[in-house]
Amino acid sequence: MRILVLNGPNLNLLGRREPDVYGNVSLKGLASELMLVAPDDVELTFVQSNHEGALLDALHEAFDYEGVIFNAGAYTHTSIALRDAIAAISAPVVEVHISNVHARESFRHESKLAAVCLGVISGFGLTSYTLALHALIEHWRNRHD
Amino acid sequence: MRILVLNGPNLNLLGRREPDVYGNVSLKGLASELMLVAPDDVELTFVQSNHEGALLDALHEAFDYEGVIFNAGAYTHTSIALRDAIAAISAPVVEVHISNVHARESFRHESKLAAVCLGVISGFGLTSYTLALHALIEHWRNRHD
Amino acid sequence: MRILVLNGPNLNLLGRREPDVYGNVSLKGLASELMLVAPDDVELTFVQSNHEGALLDALHEAFDYEGVIFNAGAYTHTSIALRDAIAAISAPVVEVHISNVHARESFRHESKLAAVCLGVISGFGLTSYTLALHALIEHWRNRHD
Amino acid sequence: MRILVLNGPNLNLLGRREPDVYGNVSLKGLASELMLVAPDDVELTFVQSNHEGALLDALHEAFDYEGVIFNAGAYTHTSIALRDAIAAISAPVVEVHISNVHARESFRHESKLAAVCLGVISGFGLTSYTLALHALIEHWRNRHD
Amino acid sequence: MRILVLNGPNLNLLGRREPDVYGNVSLKGLASELMLVAPDDVELTFVQSNHEGALLDALHEAFDYEGVIFNAGAYTHTSIALRDAIAAISAPVVEVHISNVHARESFRHESKLAAVCLGVISGFGLTSYTLALHALIEHWRNRHD
Amino acid sequence: MRILVLNGPNLNLLGRREPDVYGNVSLKGLASELMLVAPDDVELTFVQSNHEGALLDALHEAFDYEGVIFNAGAYTHTSIALRDAIAAISAPVVEVHISNVHARESFRHESKLAAVCLGVISGFGLTSYTLALHALIEHWRNRHD
Amino acid sequence: MRILVLNGPNLNLLGRREPDVYGNVSLKGLASELMLVAPDDVELTFVQSNHEGALLDALHEAFDYEGVIFNAGAYTHTSIALRDAIAAISAPVVEVHISNVHARESFRHESKLAAVCLGVISGFGLTSYTLALHALIEHWRNRHD
Amino acid sequence: MRILVLNGPNLNLLGRREPDVYGNVSLKGLASELMLVAPDDVELTFVQSNHEGALLDALHEAFDYEGVIFNAGAYTHTSIALRDAIAAISAPVVEVHISNVHARESFRHESKLAAVCLGVISGFGLTSYTLALHALIEHWRNRHD
Amino acid sequence: MRILVLNGPNLNLLGRREPDVYGNVSLKGLASELMLVAPDDVELTFVQSNHEGALLDALHEAFDYEGVIFNAGAYTHTSIALRDAIAAISAPVVEVHISNVHARESFRHESKLAAVCLGVISGFGLTSYTLALHALIEHWRNRHD
Amino acid sequence: MRILVLNGPNLNLLGRREPDVYGNVSLKGLASELMLVAPDDVELTFVQSNHEGALLDALHEAFDYEGVIFNAGAYTHTSIALRDAIAAISAPVVEVHISNVHARESFRHESKLAAVCLGVISGFGLTSYTLALHALIEHWRNRHD
Amino acid sequence: MRILVLNGPNLNLLGRREPDVYGNVSLKGLASELMLVAPDDVELTFVQSNHEGALLDALHEAFDYEGVIFNAGAYTHTSIALRDAIAAISAPVVEVHISNVHARESFRHESKLAAVCLGVISGFGLTSYTLALHALIEHWRNRHD
Amino acid sequence: MRILVLNGPNLNLLGRREPDVYGNVSLKGLASELMLVAPDDVELTFVQSNHEGALLDALHEAFDYEGVIFNAGAYTHTSIALRDAIAAISAPVVEVHISNVHARESFRHESKLAAVCLGVISGFGLTSYTLALHALIEHWRNRHD
Repeated sequence: MRILVLNGPNLNLLGRREPDVYGNVSLKGLASELMLVAPDDVELTFVQSNHEGALLDALHEAFDYEGVIFNAGAYTHTSIALRDAIAAISAPVVEVHISNVHARESFRHESKLAAVCLGVISGFGLTSYTLALHALIEHWRNRHD
Repeated sequence: MRILVLNGPNLNLLGRREPDVYGNVSLKGLASELMLVAPDDVELTFVQSNHEGALLDALHEAFDYEGVIFNAGAYTHTSIALRDAIAAISAPVVEVHISNVHARESFRHESKLAAVCLGVISGFGLTSYTLALHALIEHWRNRHD
Repeated sequence: MRILVLNGPNLNLLGRREPDVYGNVSLKGLASELMLVAPDDVELTFVQSNHEGALLDALHEAFDYEGVIFNAGAYTHTSIALRDAIAAISAPVVEVHISNVHARESFRHESKLAAVCLGVISGFGLTSYTLALHALIEHWRNRHD
Repeated sequence: MRILVLNGPNLNLLGRREPDVYGNVSLKGLASELMLVAPDDVELTFVQSNHEGALLDALHEAFDYEGVIFNAGAYTHTSIALRDAIAAISAPVVEVHISNVHARESFRHESKLAAVCLGVISGFGLTSYTLALHALIEHWRNRHD
Repeated sequence: MRILVLNGPNLNLLGRREPDVYGNVSLKGLASELMLVAPDDVELTFVQSNHEGALLDALHEAFDYEGVIFNAGAYTHTSIALRDAIAAISAPVVEVHISNVHARESFRHESKLAAVCLGVISGFGLTSYTLALHALIEHWRNRHD
Repeated sequence: MRILVLNGPNLNLLGRREPDVYGNVSLKGLASELMLVAPDDVELTFVQSNHEGALLDALHEAFDYEGVIFNAGAYTHTSIALRDAIAAISAPVVEVHISNVHARESFRHESKLAAVCLGVISGFGLTSYTLALHALIEHWRNRHD
Repeated sequence: MRILVLNGPNLNLLGRREPDVYGNVSLKGLASELMLVAPDDVELTFVQSNHEGALLDALHEAFDYEGVIFNAGAYTHTSIALRDAIAAISAPVVEVHISNVHARESFRHESKLAAVCLGVISGFGLTSYTLALHALIEHWRNRHD
Repeated sequence: MRILVLNGPNLNLLGRREPDVYGNVSLKGLASELMLVAPDDVELTFVQSNHEGALLDALHEAFDYEGVIFNAGAYTHTSIALRDAIAAISAPVVEVHISNVHARESFRHESKLAAVCLGVISGFGLTSYTLALHALIEHWRNRHD
Repeated sequence: MRILVLNGPNLNLLGRREPDVYGNVSLKGLASELMLVAPDDVELTFVQSNHEGALLDALHEAFDYEGVIFNAGAYTHTSIALRDAIAAISAPVVEVHISNVHARESFRHESKLAAVCLGVISGFGLTSYTLALHALIEHWRNRHD
Repeated sequence: MRILVLNGPNLNLLGRREPDVYGNVSLKGLASELMLVAPDDVELTFVQSNHEGALLDALHEAFDYEGVIFNAGAYTHTSIALRDAIAAISAPVVEVHISNVHARESFRHESKLAAVCLGVISGFGLTSYTLALHALIEHWRNRHD
Repeated sequence: MRILVLNGPNLNLLGRREPDVYGNVSLKGLASELMLVAPDDVELTFVQSNHEGALLDALHEAFDYEGVIFNAGAYTHTSIALRDAIAAISAPVVEVHISNVHARESFRHESKLAAVCLGVISGFGLTSYTLALHALIEHWRNRHD
Repeated sequence: MRILVLNGPNLNLLGRREPDVYGNVSLKGLASELMLVAPDDVELTFVQSNHEGALLDALHEAFDYEGVIFNAGAYTHTSIALRDAIAAISAPVVEVHISNVHARESFRHESKLAAVCLGVISGFGLTSYTLALHALIEHWRNRHD
């Protein structure tokens, strides 16, 4: 089971940027933690980019993966191109957010991506990612029942 | 650890209403499933009501609980009173949805509650509830670290 | 043929409240009149409540009725929960209004319910209800042709 | 009792255009049906035009009729001129729609005419017209009581 | 000096329709009055139509007139086609209204035509037309100075 | 002189909920204070409910009271049904708020009720209620002059 | 017959400011021209101020005049206070504009004043003032007929 | 205890302007009445101006007063400058209105000032002022407890 | 292969009206040019009208044509009736514009028709029509492959 | 004659992504087809990128080309930067779309680019590109006449 | 070189009002500082007023100055009259703000003046003024090159 | 003192693109000019990119710089990602624009970045950059006082 963990703009600053909002664990730390909780038959690929185009490329390469955990950062609220990519590929995508976007500025309340994702998880810090991993595993288990 | 699982309007019809959207497990079935996966030290209380006022009363009674899993149904999009109740009590509340509300009518895209909740989980069928349970347990574990 | 005649908030004041807008026949009088014009094989059930939750409960109980005549009063313009209930049950629902809502304040021009109803009749005083009764009878006659 | 049955743009295609939305009875068939159910003392005049100006002319000519049954089609949503004509004449006008306009595109939810009509009936197929006829007859009966 | 006095929808009812708003002088009476006050070298042509297309035709025929006094009635607020015609012809057009449109419903506050007219006169009853006539005469006098 | 003091959703938490916004006096304490300052001939009835329907019922029961002091809480901003009830009964209603709603979130700036109330008093803590009591007494004194 | 000719902000620059829009006649020149065309029994008072408050004072002082010709300049689009003053006094007010405000920026399309004025004349250069004078004289003549 | 009673545009017409809305007591009468009910240790200063700038000056001069009772009239709905002045001075300001602004045109529903005032009182005629006086006195009493 | 070339309001002025925007070829010239480039088996019918109703009639008469090239002029932006006619007939319709409507006033950016057309071509002068002809021919060739 | 054929985000998936919307010809297939129909003196350059920045670079490099055929995909609806690039270079740009964007979600109805393009062609599948090629050739032919 | 330094409402409170936002230097202190840094051939005139009308008068008097440094305070967001004055005079005007208006309430994000100013400088405390002085000097130097 | 001078999309065309708007100095020329006026202890780094992602990378690399002068071009109006980067780093950022964005299309009036910048300077041509440099130097001088 191959899963892409895709992180968008400014998430390379994790652990360094506004720690009261985003915590002080780095993106690497997040990867370690996720690999720790992932079942053996789950293969995780980690990609981070500040480039919208690179995120599109990454999604295209995961066309037939079993799932994508996607924190699109600020592009969540502006990118129709990412939405189109999610709709185009067959892999189910889970939108995740570290902070509770609904408790922040109003322009963060709208997601251009959510409508074509499997579901959304936001507000639980890095736990949002592990919940997303569980959600994807559960998604395939239910499908195969 | 006491957790309230609160369900709002029309969710008593679960398993009977639009099964392609909401699945064919009843509210009772959901309760059984949740109790199965809950750790031993978690005590779950289940309340469902079609009355906004009754949901307010239930939230007030869980003022000091360790958490609330709240599927407010249609009231999610209209009730400032429920928002005020969530803000008033000290228990952390997780907003859950069975369907992916962002893939439905636009009036379901706005949540009056999310801003004062701990976080939001939507789109994973009944799995949304079990993820919420994990999220609350994780929330307290992190707090006590 | 079982039909629910459901009346929402403030309609218990019928005949007493703003008689120039709503006439001076009471809710009881309306019931009598409707029973008078109803064919013998039509069984009418009358429910009025100021509680949105109670209206939801009543709709649920009429899940398999042959029809509902529903004057949701002010909830017409605000209740997504009632909309969901109408969409959830199999009974066809006719939205009725005593006054011509389009000739009043602009917030009365929008109906949250109409999109999931069979049709809408508004502006004919209590005659709106008898027309709705005819519409439901005609609806079933056409279906069985 | 003289009543004008006025049909607007594209309704000449009735029975030929999108039969799943508008049924397969032609405008002529509708006329026959209406005449069948009309009481003897009701004289029905049928006019259909695709020209907004011709509809205005027809309304003016029915200045003192006992009533108008008006399906303005798409002009319902755009014509202030028709609204002004309805307000100008003394005949009461009932706005009718074959389909449930509220279940269609949002630009069909607003009626420029309803505010100056006696009432609105929509969603019951051709039955909308017979209900409108009843409504007008009832309107005059109540006035003369 | 040739001037077209063009009247739009429902203005044929002048003197008969809502006399408290529009006065009780008929369109014919208005014509007489205007001819009385017009200087000898001014030739007035009167056209009224409920058809937007006929109004367009009339404007086209007055392409090179010295002026147009245009009461477009309800089309003032909806017709881009009339706006285009006014912009297309070389004759200067004065928009007139009998009633003060700004003191009525908000949808009457916007004019689709005014931006391409010479000017606007509204609210002075039939005097609006005589003022418009003076304005056009003055317009040419200033131009020739 | 009978006056209803009606409190809406979450106000049962007064003194317990966000004390920096709402103070630390309970609803009971408020009642005591009001009775203390009320003249002898004023009979106060206290009702609090989280149920919109119960608030409607309470207003109906005070149809002919000399006045209502109404803190509708969050329902102030959403309930057309309460507005209709206030318009339906003959008792004058004063809308009160403990906090200055205009200094809070923008969705609290709009009142659905104010247009049909006698007046509005907001921002003075519990003093808002005593001012409302004075306002009602003064209202009747002026009427009887 | 006393008439106030009231000019608002920046109109003291007339003849000096953007001559292609406003012409090259000064405010004094306008006054001379108006006095020339005014009948003998019309007494004209001229006031210009850049101060909204001074314009209010001037309107108050003309409470019982036979009319006001008011070019409120930019205040036309922003001042509710001037609107209230116009509504408060008994003198009929004609709103005038030198340029065609509808052919300029969209924020000049809305008038806060027009709804409480007798009528509006805009776009005819200084002729707008003389037309307004005629309109007021005609207004009183019709009243006395 | 020094309190400024500040009245804005058109309030000098009190008693003379639209008496059905504003009553027939003049501004002087209001002053007398207020002085009658004020406790001995309260010194009232009365200022009225139609000039926004003069109202700003007056607020600045009352920088350290114990309170301001401010009826800003139409400026309530448009003046950010007055809002800034209220926020800048240390004196608490109570916004008052004679009429119920919420029952009038929609542009009167928004207050630019309320967010930085202590509270708002509207709809009680001249009683609004006496209630405001009580509110300020009570405000200081509570502060000193 | 029968194709209707339908031109709406003001297009009869082609070659005479604003030549810098619309060029100086007349409607007749356009017809000649189109017939020149059309293949032999394509039969072109040309209709122009300023009447929305006549355009509706023309569309109805081309119900089963192989295609319609439609320049609806200003009606593009306002006519739901034309949209309904396009949706009702089986002929594919290509919306064309001579000028680039997106480079003009914002009210020309919205097309009420495009959603039910086969496609849109705008901005290429009269070439827009020949491109539309090619598009329709290609459309049928692809279908028959 | 050098022409750039520029394709934006997700168009590399052509033939693989949602074939019912975009057909099953790949981007390479499109290139072959275009080269087949292009006259001999037309040199086509093909660029595709998911990176907005790379599309900007490509446009800059075609500063003085004879034309650009640009399918900007989702960036059509969001990119002011691409609009600025189109306006900055001297090459005429034709905006093309494979699907009829007006028949899809409303956020696809607005083009940020169209206002600075030569024209727009949308809805004809890959034929949109060949029509655009014809349009550019015709554009230069007319210029050189 | 004559330059007007114009300050609007509430800026007389500088140094006294909200020092954390506006600093603790008074308007006089600002004047001293500016004169210190100004070149010898620059003559600075300082005007402050809370009256919009007085600001208009001041701008008119500086009709032909070499420049105006204008902090219009709250009038920046509301005054079309000041905009008209800036457009009317020939002196170039630089809009300045002490605080970063974009980091404050949304109603401070819009400037009615900026479109007709030379440029805008905001957010640098009193340094905003010295930068504006440099900008004006540089503006004239470039012009004379 | 290290300062990053960051230029966004299309600014590589400076001197070549629309010279009447942007002048005819190239980006290199700007760099020379800035280095000329910069004090000796200021080290300037110049970066230009059309890639939003590259701009994000550059901002991240200047995390602890003493300042950033940022002309984000069109991304100013659309990029929340850049806003997040500015908020994330500790370096103060000055937003600059060559042209007066407020005098151009309305979509250029809104800045997504300004709220998290130190301040904004726009409209002074390349002088905007030198003013920004002064502003940053002054910013640190004041801080160290």
